[in-house]
Amino acid sequence: MSSAKERVQAVKQHLSPEQERAIAVSPVESMKAERAKAAFNIRDMTYLLDGGKSATETRERMMLELERDLVFRMYDFHDLTKDELRERTMEKVRIGSENFRNLLNHLTNESVNTFRKRMEVVSLIDPGFWTRFGVHYGLFFGALQGSATPGQFSHWASKGAVSLNGMIGCFAMTEMGHGSNVAGVETTATFDEASDQFVIHTPTITATKWWIGGAAHTATHAVVFAQLIVGGKRYGVKSFVVPLRDPTDYSLLPGINIGDIGKKMGRDGIDNGYITFTNVRIPRGYMLMKHTKVSRTGQVKEPKLQQLTYGALLQGRVAMVVDSGNVAKKALTIAIRYAAVRRQFATKANEGIETKLLDYPIHQRRLMPLLAQAFAMHFTGTEMNTMYLQLMDRLESAGPDDDDLPEVLENLKETHATSAGLKAFCTWNCLNTIEQCRQACGGHGYSAYTGLAGMYQDFAVQCTWEGDNTILTLQAGRYLISSYREAQEGKKLAAGVSYLNRLNELIGKKCSVSKVEDVATLDVIAEAWDVVCANVVQHAGKEFEECIKSGMEIDEAYEQCSQSRLYAAKLHSYGYLFKRFADGICKTPEELRKILLPVCLLYGLYTVEDNAGAFLQYEYFSPEQISYIRTKVNELCKTVRDQAIPLVDSFNYSDYIINSPLGRKDGNVYEHYFNQVKQQNPPREHPYFDRLIKPFIHRKQDEDDLDDEEEEGGLESEDEDDE
Amino acid sequence: MSSAKERVQAVKQHLSPEQERAIAVSPVESMKAERAKAAFNIRDMTYLLDGGKSATETRERMMLELERDLVFRMYDFHDLTKDELRERTMEKVRIGSENFRNLLNHLTNESVNTFRKRMEVVSLIDPGFWTRFGVHYGLFFGALQGSATPGQFSHWASKGAVSLNGMIGCFAMTEMGHGSNVAGVETTATFDEASDQFVIHTPTITATKWWIGGAAHTATHAVVFAQLIVGGKRYGVKSFVVPLRDPTDYSLLPGINIGDIGKKMGRDGIDNGYITFTNVRIPRGYMLMKHTKVSRTGQVKEPKLQQLTYGALLQGRVAMVVDSGNVAKKALTIAIRYAAVRRQFATKANEGIETKLLDYPIHQRRLMPLLAQAFAMHFTGTEMNTMYLQLMDRLESAGPDDDDLPEVLENLKETHATSAGLKAFCTWNCLNTIEQCRQACGGHGYSAYTGLAGMYQDFAVQCTWEGDNTILTLQAGRYLISSYREAQEGKKLAAGVSYLNRLNELIGKKCSVSKVEDVATLDVIAEAWDVVCANVVQHAGKEFEECIKSGMEIDEAYEQCSQSRLYAAKLHSYGYLFKRFADGICKTPEELRKILLPVCLLYGLYTVEDNAGAFLQYEYFSPEQISYIRTKVNELCKTVRDQAIPLVDSFNYSDYIINSPLGRKDGNVYEHYFNQVKQQNPPREHPYFDRLIKPFIHRKQDEDDLDDEEEEGGLESEDEDDE
Repeated sequence: MSSAKERVQAVKQHLSPEQERAIAVSPVESMKAERAKAAFNIRDMTYLLDGGKSATETRERMMLELERDLVFRMYDFHDLTKDELRERTMEKVRIGSENFRNLLNHLTNESVNTFRKRMEVVSLIDPGFWTRFGVHYGLFFGALQGSATPGQFSHWASKGAVSLNGMIGCFAMTEMGHGSNVAGVETTATFDEASDQFVIHTPTITATKWWIGGAAHTATHAVVFAQLIVGGKRYGVKSFVVPLRDPTDYSLLPGINIGDIGKKMGRDGIDNGYITFTNVRIPRGYMLMKHTKVSRTGQVKEPKLQQLTYGALLQGRVAMVVDSGNVAKKALTIAIRYAAVRRQFATKANEGIETKLLDYPIHQRRLMPLLAQAFAMHFTGTEMNTMYLQLMDRLESAGPDDDDLPEVLENLKETHATSAGLKAFCTWNCLNTIEQCRQACGGHGYSAYTGLAGMYQDFAVQCTWEGDNTILTLQAGRYLISSYREAQEGKKLAAGVSYLNRLNELIGKKCSVSKVEDVATLDVIAEAWDVVCANVVQHAGKEFEECIKSGMEIDEAYEQCSQSRLYAAKLHSYGYLFKRFADGICKTPEELRKILLPVCLLYGLYTVEDNAGAFLQYEYFSPEQISYIRTKVNELCKTVRDQAIPLVDSFNYSDYIINSPLGRKDGNVYEHYFNQVKQQNPPREHPYFDRLIKPFIHRKQDEDDLDDEEEEGGLESEDEDDE
Repeated sequence: MSSAKERVQAVKQHLSPEQERAIAVSPVESMKAERAKAAFNIRDMTYLLDGGKSATETRERMMLELERDLVFRMYDFHDLTKDELRERTMEKVRIGSENFRNLLNHLTNESVNTFRKRMEVVSLIDPGFWTRFGVHYGLFFGALQGSATPGQFSHWASKGAVSLNGMIGCFAMTEMGHGSNVAGVETTATFDEASDQFVIHTPTITATKWWIGGAAHTATHAVVFAQLIVGGKRYGVKSFVVPLRDPTDYSLLPGINIGDIGKKMGRDGIDNGYITFTNVRIPRGYMLMKHTKVSRTGQVKEPKLQQLTYGALLQGRVAMVVDSGNVAKKALTIAIRYAAVRRQFATKANEGIETKLLDYPIHQRRLMPLLAQAFAMHFTGTEMNTMYLQLMDRLESAGPDDDDLPEVLENLKETHATSAGLKAFCTWNCLNTIEQCRQACGGHGYSAYTGLAGMYQDFAVQCTWEGDNTILTLQAGRYLISSYREAQEGKKLAAGVSYLNRLNELIGKKCSVSKVEDVATLDVIAEAWDVVCANVVQHAGKEFEECIKSGMEIDEAYEQCSQSRLYAAKLHSYGYLFKRFADGICKTPEELRKILLPVCLLYGLYTVEDNAGAFLQYEYFSPEQISYIRTKVNELCKTVRDQAIPLVDSFNYSDYIINSPLGRKDGNVYEHYFNQVKQQNPPREHPYFDRLIKPFIHRKQDEDDLDDEEEEGGLESEDEDDE
């Protein structure tokens, strides 16, 4: 077998035509040829995507630091059992926590923002670690920050909640019987005035705290969500810090029972557990009382501003939009690089040289729209993040009696609804992208080592956690209906839904281009989305109003038109993604804009084609225009394909981050793949020959009576066929 | 905690209103209530689906036999490591092989058809075993049956190929660099006349045999696909039996190197391996010579009828259509039963009783169309299987000079093309169904024990093996274009594509119902599919002809219009599925037909809605009719939901086959789930407290400087909030 290197070296010698052909089709040479097509400065595109040169350099430093850290080694990752993975993950948590502590103690020069970036990079290689680490610093610590009084926060900080010295936290919200409906959790926290304690109790099997990350092996304390009961009266779900284990030996405290949830689809590095509480007593002060307070004498004081707790939800959703873009970029880097070097089927025209997958129109159709979508998610995620930070800044300084509070809350409501829909559709899109990329790698996509299978398994949870996607789409749809109704009453809506203020102009509007080719412009596509969204939202709004007229309660009416809500939220979210992408490239320097323009057009027209039913039903586009759009999407796939390798290169993920032989930058896919398979599966003794195979295939002959029916010598008798 | 049983027993006593409510919402009672809604005889539906009472009873006997066989135990399945799973699978292979041998030796009364049914049942619980077993009996043995001369077959039978006494086979077709393009495999088989041997050789890294099931630990022999070279001339890819290991100790034979492919996305019970051959010599008679023959003196005699080898491909595809229906039924049983007992969110109207997921219109929308689709795949799979068997019967008796051979081959061509499209769309549909069912179970769908995660991972390979789905859709599309062109030339086409003989009648036809409600009939939907398929196939055909006119070669022209081919194949396959479903229920007794009719209408209208773009673009349906169809789909979802539990009950999969606590027939989901989690994860010593956690959370205090910033006593200071 000749290596790629040997083949390339052979160029310098005298070559036969067959040898020359072998070089032309070698994966490494194929990749070089693709890279040489770059019509733009790849480095500049990376700076644009990262938010500047310095951000890129920081990220590169982080990738290198992780790559060299043996605890973060990834080559053996796919072969770790659940138990090994959990132990490895705990090692990472220890190191990650030290970084975090150093950061807060100003032992490093890293800013909190840079630390977040570091976590974003880590999440790309090991989302299980990212989650396990996030259980303490994101969820437990976040709950303290959001719901503890300053005094309580200091108390838990003094116990080690910041440094993880003496305690580690987990977050016990979900129960076996209640996930999405947090208000319905059954665990009770009953105030016992005599002892000045709360009694935490699990009353039924379905009240068992379930899926609690870090509970099985890691946490000493939990923030527990439970029904507050004072003087026999229920006050709704509040949060309480409950000690779980003795930190000195990790024995369970009285009344606490914790079990391991065991094997999951993915993210097995997290030690999810279940917890039951049997009349567990905690001091009154362990209830987090920033909002609701319970006094020594059992007086309950409820907060004025429940809405402010939305902030944490919002942060999670924005992070998932960003993550969807990042993970999609990683999956696409693998599938597109592989397609640039994988060859299959020769045509006569090409003298027996097999065709690159990327040159097949159908393969372009499979991957280029997804590449365009990853850019759309990238630009949207970036803008959402900026919006989120601005909003949090305003909220931070807002007091309960501020004059602009209604406006701030209105903005919060809009961002909250928009982010709900985007979280849902972006995580669905990303999951679909991973699977499409896996299938685009053919059989090799099924190997664990090529990375896409594990990526799917790890990512899949994003569609159901932190708000089940379907429920989130319905929330977004509900907001659209209520915005529609407010607009009907003359209210001026926020920017994201302002098209609902222009229904008179938009309903019934048809595409008015003089030449069919003109549909392929950003302005026409943006208008097309506005018109279609206006129609579907109006349709949902009217359906809702019919339900109300027929005598239904509001909630029942919303349930009744849930399919229309979902459909409205879907089209609204797709239109929103397109518009953020289009906005984003308008701000881009000319050299890069000319490259991104066809990518953006492809995204816009592909999503129009994919939802052609709506555009035809509301007659914005004619059948002829839709037919043209189908052809134009083919053409744009070909255009984007031309720059596909430079574009995925601009994502700038190192080979370590990609962690897939099929996605290696040098294109030498087969050698890397073979080496990894050999390294991870070295020759060893047959594991069960003596026990299972030997006694089986060497049974006594007379046990079988069929094999002897025919005489030996059948092979020789073939010679009679000689001519 | 009270068990369901205790709750039910409590009914007999005096109950408080709260207790009565607890009983009403108990999962077991909820399931009983659903089952009580059955408007048909469930047993009769099972007989219909299975093909008669006796078939049902046979299947029940098989399920019971497997359930009681400890080697086939499933409760610990999700926690087996790859190595444990492989060893467990080999135990099953041994037992399975003994069954098979007994069957062939007439030691049991089981027919081959019954044995196939048994394998179908096994494949539902352990597709990895099914594949590993199938590697010998399906692929290796099938290759001998299909490609060996009678004498050769006898020879290998005498060596143990039937009984697995002395040898086990594997099937070495795929190479690292060639999957779909079998004709492009690089392994060579060079005839050496002097020694009367073939020399089998792996010339490059990409020629390494890859993904070979059974190679890593099981097989002694392989059927190897290699380029036949005689006298310096290449004759294309032929198959050769190559001994790999010494059966006495499983040491590798000279020139053979085999490695383990390692971890995969799923089906880890199969020991896939890679094989390289380095000048391995085999006797000339080890080439399988039923078709092409090589004589002692190197004369090569090629066969007249290459097409006859299509039979095996066809069998695989039909089996995958059937499997798609079966696996979808299993996934839906889990998700629908869970939705019948899982409650989430209370409405005021319902006095705080939470609503069953199945009562939410959006949940009906998520699952009922998929249930309808599973029925469509069931009826289609049954009919395809019958067609396949009839066709094979005819081929069996056909000689090369038979007068009706052209007709037989024409039918083969049609079935081959139809099965290609159906394999692709049914496996895609099934994979999507599994994932949708997983997500419909919310967070619990991510637990390995609830079964859907593993089902996805095991099933995913079906989309890329035995013909990559995308390539198969293109084959189907190519057949549609060539049928269109033949119809233009006046040829009468086979039944499945006969609508292409009626283009004049169909193109431009609009739905002519007088009332919009009339679109919801089987006849209108069938016509709608014919009209739309006629249009998209004609569109693809014209695009192809344009390409030819512009001077392209035929292959290039087909590539150029590949997106149109895929689109045509998609709509053709969906239309085909609908028509087979509609045909199927027409033959059904009235009592069951009235139940299946709304299911079939739902399938038809849902797929129309989902492809509304095409129906509007070709103006068969008007925007108003499409709008009505969207509403009607909601209504049909509600109708089908009413019988959803009886319908999934009629699939008649035992709890053992379902192997998911969420899909248990009694509905007692939480107790079964909790018990399984506890059983599989019993309490044990902390695996890494001493090594990792203790030194971490008990660092010396002065390592941290942040936690001490605040004074203790923060909790007490809360009391100042007392009123």
